[in-house]
Amino acid sequence: MPVRTFASDNNAPIAAEILQAVVAANDGDAVGYGHDPYTERALERLREIFGSSSDVYFTFNGTGANVVALSCLTQPYEAVICPATAHLQTDECGAFERFSGCKLLAVQCENGKLSLENLKTFAHTSREEHHVQPRVVSLSQSTEFGTLYDPVELRELCAYAHAQGWYVHMDGARISNAAAAQGLGLREATRDLGIDVLSFGGTKNGLLGGEAVVFFDGSLHRGAAPFARKQAMQLASKMRFIAAQFLALLEDDRWRTYAAHANAMAKLLEGRIRKIAGVRITRPVQCNAIFATLDRKAIETIQQRFFFYVFDEHLPEVRWMTHHATREEDVAAFADAVASSLGN
Amino acid sequence: MPVRTFASDNNAPIAAEILQAVVAANDGDAVGYGHDPYTERALERLREIFGSSSDVYFTFNGTGANVVALSCLTQPYEAVICPATAHLQTDECGAFERFSGCKLLAVQCENGKLSLENLKTFAHTSREEHHVQPRVVSLSQSTEFGTLYDPVELRELCAYAHAQGWYVHMDGARISNAAAAQGLGLREATRDLGIDVLSFGGTKNGLLGGEAVVFFDGSLHRGAAPFARKQAMQLASKMRFIAAQFLALLEDDRWRTYAAHANAMAKLLEGRIRKIAGVRITRPVQCNAIFATLDRKAIETIQQRFFFYVFDEHLPEVRWMTHHATREEDVAAFADAVASSLGN
Amino acid sequence: MPVRTFASDNNAPIAAEILQAVVAANDGDAVGYGHDPYTERALERLREIFGSSSDVYFTFNGTGANVVALSCLTQPYEAVICPATAHLQTDECGAFERFSGCKLLAVQCENGKLSLENLKTFAHTSREEHHVQPRVVSLSQSTEFGTLYDPVELRELCAYAHAQGWYVHMDGARISNAAAAQGLGLREATRDLGIDVLSFGGTKNGLLGGEAVVFFDGSLHRGAAPFARKQAMQLASKMRFIAAQFLALLEDDRWRTYAAHANAMAKLLEGRIRKIAGVRITRPVQCNAIFATLDRKAIETIQQRFFFYVFDEHLPEVRWMTHHATREEDVAAFADAVASSLGN
Amino acid sequence: MPVRTFASDNNAPIAAEILQAVVAANDGDAVGYGHDPYTERALERLREIFGSSSDVYFTFNGTGANVVALSCLTQPYEAVICPATAHLQTDECGAFERFSGCKLLAVQCENGKLSLENLKTFAHTSREEHHVQPRVVSLSQSTEFGTLYDPVELRELCAYAHAQGWYVHMDGARISNAAAAQGLGLREATRDLGIDVLSFGGTKNGLLGGEAVVFFDGSLHRGAAPFARKQAMQLASKMRFIAAQFLALLEDDRWRTYAAHANAMAKLLEGRIRKIAGVRITRPVQCNAIFATLDRKAIETIQQRFFFYVFDEHLPEVRWMTHHATREEDVAAFADAVASSLGN
Repeated sequence: MPVRTFASDNNAPIAAEILQAVVAANDGDAVGYGHDPYTERALERLREIFGSSSDVYFTFNGTGANVVALSCLTQPYEAVICPATAHLQTDECGAFERFSGCKLLAVQCENGKLSLENLKTFAHTSREEHHVQPRVVSLSQSTEFGTLYDPVELRELCAYAHAQGWYVHMDGARISNAAAAQGLGLREATRDLGIDVLSFGGTKNGLLGGEAVVFFDGSLHRGAAPFARKQAMQLASKMRFIAAQFLALLEDDRWRTYAAHANAMAKLLEGRIRKIAGVRITRPVQCNAIFATLDRKAIETIQQRFFFYVFDEHLPEVRWMTHHATREEDVAAFADAVASSLGN
Repeated sequence: MPVRTFASDNNAPIAAEILQAVVAANDGDAVGYGHDPYTERALERLREIFGSSSDVYFTFNGTGANVVALSCLTQPYEAVICPATAHLQTDECGAFERFSGCKLLAVQCENGKLSLENLKTFAHTSREEHHVQPRVVSLSQSTEFGTLYDPVELRELCAYAHAQGWYVHMDGARISNAAAAQGLGLREATRDLGIDVLSFGGTKNGLLGGEAVVFFDGSLHRGAAPFARKQAMQLASKMRFIAAQFLALLEDDRWRTYAAHANAMAKLLEGRIRKIAGVRITRPVQCNAIFATLDRKAIETIQQRFFFYVFDEHLPEVRWMTHHATREEDVAAFADAVASSLGN
Repeated sequence: MPVRTFASDNNAPIAAEILQAVVAANDGDAVGYGHDPYTERALERLREIFGSSSDVYFTFNGTGANVVALSCLTQPYEAVICPATAHLQTDECGAFERFSGCKLLAVQCENGKLSLENLKTFAHTSREEHHVQPRVVSLSQSTEFGTLYDPVELRELCAYAHAQGWYVHMDGARISNAAAAQGLGLREATRDLGIDVLSFGGTKNGLLGGEAVVFFDGSLHRGAAPFARKQAMQLASKMRFIAAQFLALLEDDRWRTYAAHANAMAKLLEGRIRKIAGVRITRPVQCNAIFATLDRKAIETIQQRFFFYVFDEHLPEVRWMTHHATREEDVAAFADAVASSLGN
Repeated sequence: MPVRTFASDNNAPIAAEILQAVVAANDGDAVGYGHDPYTERALERLREIFGSSSDVYFTFNGTGANVVALSCLTQPYEAVICPATAHLQTDECGAFERFSGCKLLAVQCENGKLSLENLKTFAHTSREEHHVQPRVVSLSQSTEFGTLYDPVELRELCAYAHAQGWYVHMDGARISNAAAAQGLGLREATRDLGIDVLSFGGTKNGLLGGEAVVFFDGSLHRGAAPFARKQAMQLASKMRFIAAQFLALLEDDRWRTYAAHANAMAKLLEGRIRKIAGVRITRPVQCNAIFATLDRKAIETIQQRFFFYVFDEHLPEVRWMTHHATREEDVAAFADAVASSLGN
């Protein structure tokens, strides 16, 4: 029986159709660096989905996607407003700062979500040269806490940002989970709400590895994107294998099938957990993550069988994630382990 | 029939055993970021090969490997001596400079090979703060012209560099081709000659994608390597799939089988080309690349059937490369096309 | 009558003895970049004051001093803990981030002062490569709010930082004001309390322009400091003129005379302000700055005669500063203007 | 008698009128960071000289001026073409690369002068993302060898660069010497020939310290210049004292008087040197520098009395410089010392 973790959607295997697409693409030679028919078709398909003015760049990983996206929108004296809990701020080891020289303006906020009030505090930044100039708002959908901005919220945040002359970047490492949860299409969940640039995640939704930076208006990066991707060490020579994965992911809306399944497994787990005494769910469960607090010893007991992360050592607060390949019996086994660890 | 190019070894498909290893690794969940059994085994295997003091970091691509390796050996006021024709200098879009802030000291040299004389010109750099301080010598084996340093040359260059207090980095995107051509083991071709850090190439030798930075002495990077890899956006979350490829590449010395085949195909092509009137081979053919000059119109004629690059528009000089999957009939077809384009 | 502002101590003229020293140093040629007798003497004098293991580097300005100091103590994946209100964080336009690629970890705190509690939140930072690693604590003495850490506080903060393996940097743009206020010598106020590196301010205490980075242990920067200063564009060719100013500042403890005068003028102003109805002093007045809140219209009225900054537009909160050349009659005229603006 | 060196024009004292201007500006308070009447007047004067579309930024030193100028004209994947002997390339410790992340494309050329042929080699750079994109040509006038581009040459280089879409930056650390030698005005010697941005040197022509970055078209930097200067740690708080120096330098064309004197002293020295057996002048003497080769022991003998630099240890080749304060008797004494060292 395959090992299951509840640590992260990046612990998941490759979805069968995706792996099959990689195998199928391994047919003879193909010109490198994206000048191959797989990449051409994948980019065409992404432009169909996101609109013909879109300009798309595949990258290896999510940190790479965020750095390419943001560095193309900023000059080194400009800054990016983001939640203090953004992956960009807490889990990317300052890659963006090192690569771009820019500053992140990290904001305390609730459940990983920026509010209009948060943005307003930057509206009156002095234009004098003593101060970095806010230029981009970066938000994650779904957030690092598995929560969601609803479409009305996003529309409002984007409108406010644009009124200030700021761009809005979405870290969509899990945009598929968000769109699936809200019954939206990929474009409806992003561009149509006012997002300017999307880091479109694949790796956490069943891919071997690959992300896509989508500029909804190709003129936004002023010609910088191909160079930024190369300098960010994100230009794959055998790009056909990333492209083939995206083609498979987009075919038959598999992105939605995988993500919806992950979400459903989290809901299933949530239902089970809520019945267990001694564990408290700490955040709204809106996608494929559950945050909870429980006894430290119980955590250790469960971890002997299932790998997962303690997010906040102080409480302690743990994170449990599901993914495209999580099965109902995995959820049952895990919930049983939680219950048993707490003497239920 | 599969398409064949003679453009680059990165146009090649994935070798069958490598792809099979990826498929086999797709078994259940695995902890991310290298804390999985595949990565553990692959790192152990690499330490067996390169010596137990080695410290190894997988990366996505060659530019990433070079940047991680070099940035761990330098402070921002230190510089890297390299050939003016190094991939690092000409084909990585300044990724190293942007990431590290360091300067490359690019040296004019022949057939892509640094000489002792080249190094000596940096021996008396003033230690005053007006001048960047040479700290690393970076050389490519095989070179970007498909030529080789012989072991005696390398030993001498390394000894000289070490006497100056410099490290030696090898861009080994094609180290397997070099070692195969010289009948050396991987360690014999690198560490044993005095190399300090190796970018060990996989992508150009049959992998889907993956490289390894090998510090032969783990203390060289002073704890920086894991962080540098993360900041360089080269830390794969699903690292098991890179590790599994390396395990397969190292098993039964497949690295040598693939590379030796590529070399043999180049030799075969060389033999054919030398018999064709109107084409002149311009560099020693020592691995899997042939550089040649021929009539501009003939080039265009051949390119209608086979993709390859014109390296130097002025002569013009073209590059033809073979790889692990090049077949004798591909060589024959290509040589026929060259002959026919020149009216032979 | 000379113009007086109450905006900043950097609006002050050059102190007479300092200017005289510049004039006196203008005698014939002198070798550039610090290889002159003035610089030699000034460095010797600074080592006498701060201890013979000290290593000192003059810079042009305070941002330059901070950047040189901090960049010598950090690798690009390491971070600097500082107050959210630090000059470094708010008023240096991200110069440190751009130059070093490092991240600042900005902490909400009171009256510009880091507390032990603030530091403790960083003590358990994961050592994994996903996270930047705290390496230096930077604090300002006196703070940007004119407040002071007392020696016991500083000793405790330094001891805690050192126990974590962190260095402590003091932004001493106004260390003279602090030392004068506390009756301490320069060494007693810095090194003796545990500070590792000091940005020793001159410009705000009567100089034409010049600061000094003082590493109390010269081995801390591992040879990087001269190069970092040059790369930070802070190496003066005619360095004798910075050195001569420092010699004059240190002679007869003029640094103390100037700073004590500035402090006394602030005390005088405080006394006057406290008697005026409609204005409230918002921070402890411990050096040469007074923060106050008063009616917006009154502010505008005063500003018609005296230039000063509104620090926080929301309250509004203003900052009034005194300096070495502020005279009692200036204070009287200013206090009268405040009183009159409020109908007193 | 004052010490004289023949090492560099930055070993010179401050010119009397310049120092007087600093003293005169020391009158009461003045608002910081350039919002003072001296700066306003100096900027106005510079716009009168260089044209009303000019936008000017004072900096502390020449490296700072070059870095501010060039970083405002480039994106991080763009590159600057310059002579291999440019101060920017050899004597600024990679400050530009560290600050901007950009690459310098250093060109071998004669007597420090770029030729049209040099530029042409970059005209066909591939626009693919593998390669940095040339964006600016930086040339020094006078050059680091004391030689001059004549106006026709400069006009031709600028026209060629502009046709390629490149900007032209002039490192004018010694533009006054050049303009004086060629009988041109400051604008005639720069903007009127096609230069886009000038680093206008003051420190080497009699100032205490100060340079000015002059964008001849203020739109070139797209709003970046004030921020770039601040991030480059070149924003002086007491800017009035730099501005006052420039006002004095420009008054009565003192820049020309000082520079012409320095040039004349070099001519005088050249005349004396040419009569001495055993010393050979190696470069055209066109401004205030003489390069010469002579016996190594003679060099040491002269250096016992006069400080100067050996530029190239191999020949050996020395550099002797004159400046605004070099007197005829200094030249005579120095020439005597040279003669005597060679037994003349």
